[in-house]
Amino acid sequence: TEKFESLCAILDALERDLGSVARVDFVVEDDRLWCIDGRPADLEPTASIASAVDLVEEGVISQQQALLGVDPDHLETVATARLSPHSETALTYGSGAAPGAASGVICLDVEAVDEATARNLPAILVTREIRPEDVVSLGSVAGVLADRGGKASHAALVTRGIGTPAVIGASNMSINVPDRLVSIGDSVLSEGDWITLDGTTGEVFAGNLRLKKRTVPEEIKTLLAWADQWRTLEVWGNVDNPAAAALVRSAKGEGVGLARTEHMFSGEQLSIVRQLLTTTDQRARSAALGELEDAQIGDFETLLTSMDGLPVVVRLLDPPLHEFLPDRISILRDIRLHATQGLDTAPLERIERAVSHYEESNPMLGMRGVRLAIVMPEIYRVQVLAALEAVRRRLDAGGNPQLHLMVPLVGAVEELTVVRNMIEEEVHQAGRLLEVSVGTMIELPRAALVADAIALQSDFFSFGTNDLTQTTLGMSRDDAEEAFLRTYIDRGLLAANPFQTLDIDGVGQLMKMAITKARAVNPEIQIGVCGEHGGDTDSIAFFHAIGVDYVSCSPPRIASARLAAAQAAIRDGA
Amino acid sequence: TEKFESLCAILDALERDLGSVARVDFVVEDDRLWCIDGRPADLEPTASIASAVDLVEEGVISQQQALLGVDPDHLETVATARLSPHSETALTYGSGAAPGAASGVICLDVEAVDEATARNLPAILVTREIRPEDVVSLGSVAGVLADRGGKASHAALVTRGIGTPAVIGASNMSINVPDRLVSIGDSVLSEGDWITLDGTTGEVFAGNLRLKKRTVPEEIKTLLAWADQWRTLEVWGNVDNPAAAALVRSAKGEGVGLARTEHMFSGEQLSIVRQLLTTTDQRARSAALGELEDAQIGDFETLLTSMDGLPVVVRLLDPPLHEFLPDRISILRDIRLHATQGLDTAPLERIERAVSHYEESNPMLGMRGVRLAIVMPEIYRVQVLAALEAVRRRLDAGGNPQLHLMVPLVGAVEELTVVRNMIEEEVHQAGRLLEVSVGTMIELPRAALVADAIALQSDFFSFGTNDLTQTTLGMSRDDAEEAFLRTYIDRGLLAANPFQTLDIDGVGQLMKMAITKARAVNPEIQIGVCGEHGGDTDSIAFFHAIGVDYVSCSPPRIASARLAAAQAAIRDGA
Repeated sequence: TEKFESLCAILDALERDLGSVARVDFVVEDDRLWCIDGRPADLEPTASIASAVDLVEEGVISQQQALLGVDPDHLETVATARLSPHSETALTYGSGAAPGAASGVICLDVEAVDEATARNLPAILVTREIRPEDVVSLGSVAGVLADRGGKASHAALVTRGIGTPAVIGASNMSINVPDRLVSIGDSVLSEGDWITLDGTTGEVFAGNLRLKKRTVPEEIKTLLAWADQWRTLEVWGNVDNPAAAALVRSAKGEGVGLARTEHMFSGEQLSIVRQLLTTTDQRARSAALGELEDAQIGDFETLLTSMDGLPVVVRLLDPPLHEFLPDRISILRDIRLHATQGLDTAPLERIERAVSHYEESNPMLGMRGVRLAIVMPEIYRVQVLAALEAVRRRLDAGGNPQLHLMVPLVGAVEELTVVRNMIEEEVHQAGRLLEVSVGTMIELPRAALVADAIALQSDFFSFGTNDLTQTTLGMSRDDAEEAFLRTYIDRGLLAANPFQTLDIDGVGQLMKMAITKARAVNPEIQIGVCGEHGGDTDSIAFFHAIGVDYVSCSPPRIASARLAAAQAAIRDGA
Repeated sequence: TEKFESLCAILDALERDLGSVARVDFVVEDDRLWCIDGRPADLEPTASIASAVDLVEEGVISQQQALLGVDPDHLETVATARLSPHSETALTYGSGAAPGAASGVICLDVEAVDEATARNLPAILVTREIRPEDVVSLGSVAGVLADRGGKASHAALVTRGIGTPAVIGASNMSINVPDRLVSIGDSVLSEGDWITLDGTTGEVFAGNLRLKKRTVPEEIKTLLAWADQWRTLEVWGNVDNPAAAALVRSAKGEGVGLARTEHMFSGEQLSIVRQLLTTTDQRARSAALGELEDAQIGDFETLLTSMDGLPVVVRLLDPPLHEFLPDRISILRDIRLHATQGLDTAPLERIERAVSHYEESNPMLGMRGVRLAIVMPEIYRVQVLAALEAVRRRLDAGGNPQLHLMVPLVGAVEELTVVRNMIEEEVHQAGRLLEVSVGTMIELPRAALVADAIALQSDFFSFGTNDLTQTTLGMSRDDAEEAFLRTYIDRGLLAANPFQTLDIDGVGQLMKMAITKARAVNPEIQIGVCGEHGGDTDSIAFFHAIGVDYVSCSPPRIASARLAAAQAAIRDGA
C-alpha cells in the first residue's frame, strides 16, 4: 500500500546513500509512518558482500562504493570452515593464529601424524612449539594447537601461510610426551582422542564437533575482479614450500614475492643440512652439498613451473644455523640416556658440539642471512647453482622462468656485491644466457639508511617488514607478545600490534626514506614488501601511498590484499 | 761548529713545521752537509708527549700543534703497568680487552679470589665468561682471563671500565672446574699457579713475570690542561659501581654520564633480586623490595657524594631479568644431583621454573629496560625511591646532589611518560623540593626516528651507541665478533669494528637526524653519548661535529677523550 511504498522509497534512498543494504526502524502511529532510525543492516560478511555486488549490478551504487563498503579482513575467513552451532564449553582459549575450524585426533609428534593420516583420520598436531622439522608435516595436518607463541610468532606465520587452522599460546595446557597425554584446563586427553579447534576465535573443544565447509561465492569473485581493475599495487604470494605456489596461482597472485628456501630444508633435506653442520670431514661435506643441490633443483623447478611466466623471488638461506639442529637440553638428556644404557655416545656428542658451536645469545642478530654467505659461502653457492639449473631445465622444457634471487639481511652494499659477483660468476660459467634478477631484502635499519648505495647494486628491493620491525623497535617477535606487547596494547601504549599493522611513525618513516633514496639513484628499481604486513589492510594503504610496487603475503590473504589495494587506490583518487 | 749550527737550524725549522721532535738523516761529504731525509722522530709515546710540551714551552710550536700531534689512544695505556723485557713465549693469545699487564695466581671463581686476597696474593680470575655475580669481585682482582667474548663484549666493557687488565677470547684454552685445572695450549696449570697476562697485546704467559708500573708524567697533565681549554665537548665518565665514581673524579670527568644500577645488583644484592624473581609470595616480595631499596640508597649516596656538584646520570634497570638468574643447564644438573642424593629438589625446581619463565629467544630484543617498568613497575619504583632518598640525605648533609634519572630502551614517548609520571608522583610525595632531571637513552632506531616526540618529555638524551649499533646493524655484540665481524673486517667489508668506532653512515646518520629533530622542538635539551664510542677518538670527532654536548666513557679513557675532543675543536677552527 501507500505506507509500504514510502518505506521502499526511504530504503532505496538510504541504500544509495549508505552504499549497502539498509535497516530501518519504524512505527506506524495514527496511520502515519514514522522512521525512527536508518543504518546499514548487520549482515553476515558473505551476505553483505553479495548484497553489495547486487546493488552495483542494479545500478544503485557504484563499484567504488561497493569496494569501499567491504572489510577486506572478511575475505580471509570467507572460504575457511567454521563450527556448526553447538553448545560445548571451550576447554581453553589461545590466539586464533590461522583462521578456520578443524577437528581431528590429537597427535603429539610427526610420527603420530603419519600414523593418523595412514588410518585416514584428520590429525591435529598438539605441540609445545613448531620447529623447522615439523613444517614438512604441517601440510598434512588438519589443524595445529601450540603451547607457545602468539599471533605474530613464527608458528602463526607458517600455519597461516599454508591455510591450516591454528590456535597458539593456549593457556592452562601442558603436554606430557612420555605418557602421551595432554592436560587442558581440568581435562586430561590422550593422544588419539578427538579435539576441535577454531583458529578464528582461538577456542579449543574436546571431541569431534561438526564443521561447516564453505566455498567462495561467485559474488566475491566478481568483487575481486572489480578490485583488480582499480588497484595499482600488485599482489604476490609468499610460499614456504614449492607446492604452495599452486595456492598463489589459484588465488590470482601475480608472482611469488618470497620463496623461503630454508623451509625446504625440512624432512629429508634436514638430515643433509645436519650432516653438513656437524661434520668437518671434507668428503662428507661435499657429498651433503651435492645432495642438497639435487633436492633444491627439484624444489625450484616445481616452483618455476607453477608460476611459469610470473616472477618468483627466491630468498637465499636466511635463518641462523642452529635452527636446523636439535635443542641442546634434549641432546644432553639423550647423551645421558645413552651413557646409562652403555651405548656409544660419540655421534650425539658430535652433534652436541655443533649445537654448542652455533649457539648464540641473540640468534636474530647473529650469524644468519648474507653473513652465512660471507663466512661459509658453500651453501649459498649450492642454492644459486640449483636455481640456475632449474631455470635451464625450464627453458629446455619451453617454459618461461622468471627467477629473482634475493639476498637477506644486507646492511652494507659491500655484502650484496660479494653475493652478486658470485651469482654473475655462476651465470657466466653456465655458458648460456640465463636472465636472473638480483635484489636484496631491506630488513635492517642500516639498509634503509644507506638504501641509495644498495640500490645501485639491486634490481629490486623487498622490505622484510617483520625483521625491520624487530630491529627498528628492538622487539623480538617471538618474545615480545607474551612478555609485554599485550600489556602495551591493553594500556594504550601502542595503537596496534606492530607485527600485524605497520608502525608507520617508526618503520614506515624508514621505508619512505629508503624508497626516496633508492629511486633517486635507480628509478627503475622494483619495490616490494614481503613481511606479514603485506597482507594487512591498514598497512597496504600506507604501502600504496609511499609508492611500493607490490605486496606479497601468504596465499590465504591474497584476496583481502587485492581488495585493500583497490580501496587504497580509490581513496587516493586514482 | 758551522755544520752543527746549520744542522740545528734545519732541525729547528723542521720541528716548527712538523710540530714534534724531528729526526734528520744526513751525510757530510766534501766537507758539506747533505740532508737526506727529515721526518718526525719515532719516540716512545710518553717521550713524544713530553717533547711536544717542551716545544710549546720553548715557543717552537703552538698548543694546537702539540695537541694535534699526540695520538689520543696513547693516553689510555700511558699509566698502566707493562711487562719488563723478558724472553718467555706466550702460552696463548686473545683479544687485549683492557690494557695493562698483571701477574697473579689463577682463581677459577669468586671464592678462590677471596681466598687469594686474604693471603695477600694478587688474583687472576680465569673464567669462561664474566657473569653479573662476578662483577663485584672484579674490583679486587689483578687481571681477568676469559674464554669467551671479544674486544666489544660485555666482559671487555666491564674490565676496561674499572681499569683491570683483561685478555678475552683466548684460544686453545679449556677450564676444568671440578678438577680446578686450566689447560692452555700444551700446558696444564692448576688453580693457585702463577700466570701473567698483558691486556694491551693479548698475550698470556705461565709464571710470575716482572711488571713495570708507571705514573702519569707531569707533561701529560699539562697537555690535558691545554686540551680542556680548547675543547667544547664535555667529557664525563661511566661507572659500574659507586666506588668507580672516585676514578671519574680523579680523571677530571665533569659528571657521571652512566651509572649502571644493575651492576650494583651483584654480591649480596643479587640474592635479593633472585628472591624477588623466584617467589610469588607477596610478603617475601615486599621484604626483598625493601632490602633492595635500602641497599640502593647507600649506593646512590656514595655516588652523589663522590660527584658532589656535578651531574650524575643514574640509568634505571636495563638488562633482561634472566641475567640475574643462574644458567638453566647448570640448574638442571643440580636438580639431578640433589635427586640422586635424596635431597629436596623443590627449591631448585622453583628457581628452574623462574629461569624457564624468563628465558627468551633474543633477550637483547626482549623484556628489558622501560618494558620492565611497564610490566612489573615495582623495581623501577624502588630505584626511584632509593635515588630520591639519597638526594634528600645529601641535601641534609649540606651537599649539592645533581641527580639525573635515565630511562633505557624507550622506543615511544608513551613509555617515557609512564615513568616520568611515576617519578613526578614520588617527588611530589616526598613533600620537599627535590630537583631531578628525567631523560632517556636513545638506543633504538625508532627512538631516533621519533626523537621530536620524545624530546618534548625529556630533559636530556643520552645516545646508547652500543645498543643503537646492535639494532641498526642487526648485530649482537656478543655473537658477532667471533662469528663474522673479524672476517668482515679482514675482507674489507667493514672499515672498522662498529662497536669500537661509530658506523657514521648508518648509526651516525640516525644520530644526526635525532639531534636535529629534538633540538627543533626542545632547544634546551642536553645531548650526550654514553656508549663505548664515547671514548673512541674517531667517533668523538663526529660527535663534536653533530653538536653533542658531552661524551661519557669508562674512567681509563677519559684522558684520551679530553684530548680527542680538543683535537676535534681545533680542526673545526673553534
